[in-house]
Amino acid sequence: MAKAKIAVNGYGTIGKRVADAAQAQDDMEIIGISKTKPNYEAAVAHQLGYDIYAPAANLEAFEKAGMPAAGSIEEMVEKADVIVDCTPGGIGKSNKALYEKAGVKAIWQGGEDHELAGYSFNAVANYEGALGLDFVRVVSCNTTGLCRVIYPIDKAFGTKKVRVTLARRATDPNDIKKGPINAIVPDPIKLPSHHGPDVKTVIPHIDITSAAMKIPTTLMHVHTVNMELKNECTAEDVRQVLGSQSRVRFVGQGITSTAEIMEVARDIKRPRNDMWENCVWPDSITMHEGELYFFQAIHQESIVVPENVDAIRAMMELESDGAKSILKTNKAIGL
Amino acid sequence: MAKAKIAVNGYGTIGKRVADAAQAQDDMEIIGISKTKPNYEAAVAHQLGYDIYAPAANLEAFEKAGMPAAGSIEEMVEKADVIVDCTPGGIGKSNKALYEKAGVKAIWQGGEDHELAGYSFNAVANYEGALGLDFVRVVSCNTTGLCRVIYPIDKAFGTKKVRVTLARRATDPNDIKKGPINAIVPDPIKLPSHHGPDVKTVIPHIDITSAAMKIPTTLMHVHTVNMELKNECTAEDVRQVLGSQSRVRFVGQGITSTAEIMEVARDIKRPRNDMWENCVWPDSITMHEGELYFFQAIHQESIVVPENVDAIRAMMELESDGAKSILKTNKAIGL
Repeated sequence: MAKAKIAVNGYGTIGKRVADAAQAQDDMEIIGISKTKPNYEAAVAHQLGYDIYAPAANLEAFEKAGMPAAGSIEEMVEKADVIVDCTPGGIGKSNKALYEKAGVKAIWQGGEDHELAGYSFNAVANYEGALGLDFVRVVSCNTTGLCRVIYPIDKAFGTKKVRVTLARRATDPNDIKKGPINAIVPDPIKLPSHHGPDVKTVIPHIDITSAAMKIPTTLMHVHTVNMELKNECTAEDVRQVLGSQSRVRFVGQGITSTAEIMEVARDIKRPRNDMWENCVWPDSITMHEGELYFFQAIHQESIVVPENVDAIRAMMELESDGAKSILKTNKAIGL
Repeated sequence: MAKAKIAVNGYGTIGKRVADAAQAQDDMEIIGISKTKPNYEAAVAHQLGYDIYAPAANLEAFEKAGMPAAGSIEEMVEKADVIVDCTPGGIGKSNKALYEKAGVKAIWQGGEDHELAGYSFNAVANYEGALGLDFVRVVSCNTTGLCRVIYPIDKAFGTKKVRVTLARRATDPNDIKKGPINAIVPDPIKLPSHHGPDVKTVIPHIDITSAAMKIPTTLMHVHTVNMELKNECTAEDVRQVLGSQSRVRFVGQGITSTAEIMEVARDIKRPRNDMWENCVWPDSITMHEGELYFFQAIHQESIVVPENVDAIRAMMELESDGAKSILKTNKAIGL
């Protein structure tokens, strides 16, 4: 069977990771990536052998920079079966007409509205609903992280109410423009934040409220999750459920912070020290006065990467069973 | 009437502020402060004219450093009516025998256990219960911040359940030893944290759960507060209640973070840019699906300072009415 032809439009934090992860699968191949300017990330893409496409007006700049582009973004779109749009939040929307005109399938990221794609995706929660779809939105890192734990816990015990507080990393490690560097920023100040409710785009029946703060760190987000469940269960029951999820990693053994989680990712030689799994502290899983509490850390740069691969597989109907796609994706990238 | 004679044992972050605040009152005076070593803080105390007391073995070191001590800590204790013990958490306990022997009243801070003093104090919640007591514990910055909002809201509407997530500043601005500088540290990992439940040492009937994280900032803590109330009310009702509290400050007008709050404290010329009030974002006060949510920021270095002054006044029975003591304290320090 011919491999599905994938193009990544926007080779930034998410795009470059999705490119590598899709390229590692035996049922898909990267036929091109797009970059606006010939910067250091483009240079590495060139080195890795990816065909680079650029806005027509910038092709000369790539030529001059010693990394000649393979063509314009329009040309790349024409060649692909699926475009993974990883352009900055809000920009992906303006690309929809281009994808529709070319009759190509497209995946957007969580920075775009649910309505743009009409289907918000999480591999463990709703893979099957994406089979054959033309447009899919892979939800944000925070929403992905929440769906991965809420879905199986809800399936096992039923959910009355979820309350989440998100301590959000202020920006990514490579960004030197944003802050804060020494402050806590409740964001948004008006409550609730959109983060929790975005889970409903994937699992509509979940009653969830969230509050979020930006804090001066670049490594990971941390969620404090509180769940009121329908059926009685123990902390050990919840530990069993989460422990059975391939994209949930239990962290202990002296791991007390996001810094030590990143050190593990480096020690196990993950590409770019990516941590694709939710990192849950099993010691934090507690039933207190009949309510469930736990902490999880979310690596914002990489957690949605395997979900993008699964979304491609569903849309191209390369695999009809979500659980099988998850295992296949995991194996190919080394998760 | 003679002024109450106050000594501050431990002239650090809290101690130096309590000394200045008590000295500013017309019914009390600082008769001495203690310092272990003649460091930069001791030098400023000397400059301010405070009598410095030190461990007997270190008196010579103070002499040599050009800031001769007035005597030993034992001598200071003998002269005082009330000792405000601001020694580091856990050390205050070992001073109890000394205070008992001298027959002097003593206040400990929130770092000590409730049982050490037997009475945990917050001015708005339980001033009157401290009248004439020999030993009182002024609860920690986080607990003080929680009591100041939970008590009046509970009084107005009744409380079913409180859930708090605390984003704790990792350390104080003058500390160069502690971290993290780029990580989130769920602390404690085992839930719930002691912070919320410590409120029960002041307001025993409150059902409260909390989770806490240390984060890389030095300015202030931020609390995400969720309350289920007994009586129906609107966000506006809650805003009215909190707005009537003299030690709750509403922050808006472009204040989006703890950094801007500290800038206000500097602009209004607060000593050491102290923010004695809880800083609540009125825009964050929300009723969502029948539950109350809001954000507040807590200046860990200074919020307990007025409470220490009120505790002195109650223990010395200088004022029998808590509300009057609060106003008197506020006015004298410029709150």
